[in-house]
Amino acid sequence: MSSYGSSVRVAEASRVAIFGGTHGNEMSGVTLVNLWVKNSAEIQRKRVETKPFITNPKAVEKCSRYVDTDLNRAFTPENLRYTRHTAGNVSAPAGDELPYEVQRAQEINRIFGPKGSPEAYDVVFDLHNTTSNMGCTLILESSKDHFNLQMMNYIKKAIAPASCLVLLNEHPLLKYSTSRSVAKHPVGLEVGPQPQGVLRSNIFEAMRVILKHALDFIELFNEGMEFPTCTVEVFRVLDRIDYPRDANGNIIAMVHPNLQDCDWEPLNPGDPMFQSFDGKTIRYQGLGTVFPTFINEAAYYEKQQAFVTTRREALVASAIRKV
Amino acid sequence: MSSYGSSVRVAEASRVAIFGGTHGNEMSGVTLVNLWVKNSAEIQRKRVETKPFITNPKAVEKCSRYVDTDLNRAFTPENLRYTRHTAGNVSAPAGDELPYEVQRAQEINRIFGPKGSPEAYDVVFDLHNTTSNMGCTLILESSKDHFNLQMMNYIKKAIAPASCLVLLNEHPLLKYSTSRSVAKHPVGLEVGPQPQGVLRSNIFEAMRVILKHALDFIELFNEGMEFPTCTVEVFRVLDRIDYPRDANGNIIAMVHPNLQDCDWEPLNPGDPMFQSFDGKTIRYQGLGTVFPTFINEAAYYEKQQAFVTTRREALVASAIRKV
Ligand SMILES: [Zn+2]
Ligand SMILES: [Zn+2]
Repeated sequence: MSSYGSSVRVAEASRVAIFGGTHGNEMSGVTLVNLWVKNSAEIQRKRVETKPFITNPKAVEKCSRYVDTDLNRAFTPENLRYTRHTAGNVSAPAGDELPYEVQRAQEINRIFGPKGSPEAYDVVFDLHNTTSNMGCTLILESSKDHFNLQMMNYIKKAIAPASCLVLLNEHPLLKYSTSRSVAKHPVGLEVGPQPQGVLRSNIFEAMRVILKHALDFIELFNEGMEFPTCTVEVFRVLDRIDYPRDANGNIIAMVHPNLQDCDWEPLNPGDPMFQSFDGKTIRYQGLGTVFPTFINEAAYYEKQQAFVTTRREALVASAIRKV
Repeated sequence: MSSYGSSVRVAEASRVAIFGGTHGNEMSGVTLVNLWVKNSAEIQRKRVETKPFITNPKAVEKCSRYVDTDLNRAFTPENLRYTRHTAGNVSAPAGDELPYEVQRAQEINRIFGPKGSPEAYDVVFDLHNTTSNMGCTLILESSKDHFNLQMMNYIKKAIAPASCLVLLNEHPLLKYSTSRSVAKHPVGLEVGPQPQGVLRSNIFEAMRVILKHALDFIELFNEGMEFPTCTVEVFRVLDRIDYPRDANGNIIAMVHPNLQDCDWEPLNPGDPMFQSFDGKTIRYQGLGTVFPTFINEAAYYEKQQAFVTTRREALVASAIRKV
């Protein structure tokens, strides 16, 4: 039995980038990319050039998430449009009037994009850490990207019995304009729990192993291996849940101890969700079971988000083979 | 048997303050103090006025450790001296030329000090969080403060079988000029692990319980109870250990997985201490067993400190009774 005849043909992935420091205080990616900038032997594979790149050096220098605005939300058409205007000598705001991260987004788009164009890099891995107990999480932006789905399947099998989960964010309102979105196949890698500004050896090694397998997949694909159709379990972003607040917008409750650190575990209607400062339990009122993740992520307080809810789905990945 | 005759006489503790937000991204203290500023019933006791106070409101607003410089190192004689000059109309740098935290230190010293004077507050509790796995830690600055040692003994017994440890920093070089040092009896409270910018319910509740017992102790003392002599186990700060670095000052190794999260556990000569990025183990080379703490604290990367070593000691607290 072979799915040879029906394989989706995908272009060889000859240009790959690994982004670190999109958030300057997420130390695993910053450290790995800085190491690989010095010596990239570990990330090189046959038939592909892999470029390690620090996306937000000023934020890394300050060990803060960002300087002016979140780089990982900055790759919007509005922000990137100026690049083309400038290139064509059409009047546009001067580069140094723009927020630092918007300038960086334009620069990154010039080097690794342009986003959505045939000239864009094939794959970008963007390395993140979270304070949530999410373990190894790969983040996809499309359920139609069979190359990426096959990569997820490969990585999951390669690291078993350790596990890594796939978060799919195709939500029309909650999807955002990531740094990695400049590539044809954008892959986010989110590993935690790790506090901001801290480097933990277990998280560092977990991230390193995931990338090794991801690059191995790309090498096999480029060498002509066919990957037969498969199903991949993903968690699809459904909604964001904010902290309970008073009339002035002040938070009045914490993530409930029964929910804290329970990323990816089922949350059922009636389950404790928050605990108010005076000890009251606030329960989940949804209609059905969801799977929360990004629970109590430090960076999401400012985004009014205590956690996101997801639904578990099995996606079918078509067989793929290179063109 | 009574130690009545030999009791050290200590003045009643009628003015107590609870500081939160000395580091603006340590959320348990920020949140508790903000709650108590709105409603202080929980922290009031007979015969004592307890004042909750946000020490670094600008850092709290930014959710960063500090704005210009670390407030918890700013209560030096040099910084506080200007206060007196200004009061006496002697020329001194204008207030708004000084770093924000130096201005705050002077203001806090005016309200709760002056440091070292008879007018100073009796007790200041300063609330901190750490990314280290330190559990509940009380920090003392003097082995001669029998009031504080008796308080430690009281709290340890009150929260048993839960535990809280006492860190004593009398080191001539490593002791620093804390916010709480304006008081006659300064007490630091450090609870972790909690990432910066995150509020965890378990850490929040642990801090709240410690303060309840501390205030109960003060009430009993003020009511005339005699506290007989006792011994208190403390961990005395010995040394700071930096991360291994290359010639350019860049960190080349992480806390070893065998040491990570093992605050307060014995570290023996030859035990793994760091793991380099290329997988080499770096071992502890000291002459005897030490007890590391503040292991991999986020805020101490900039202070060139991977952890501090301590020695376990039993201190004798004299019997005390109020004057
Ligand atoms: Zn991130
Ligand atoms: Zn602190």
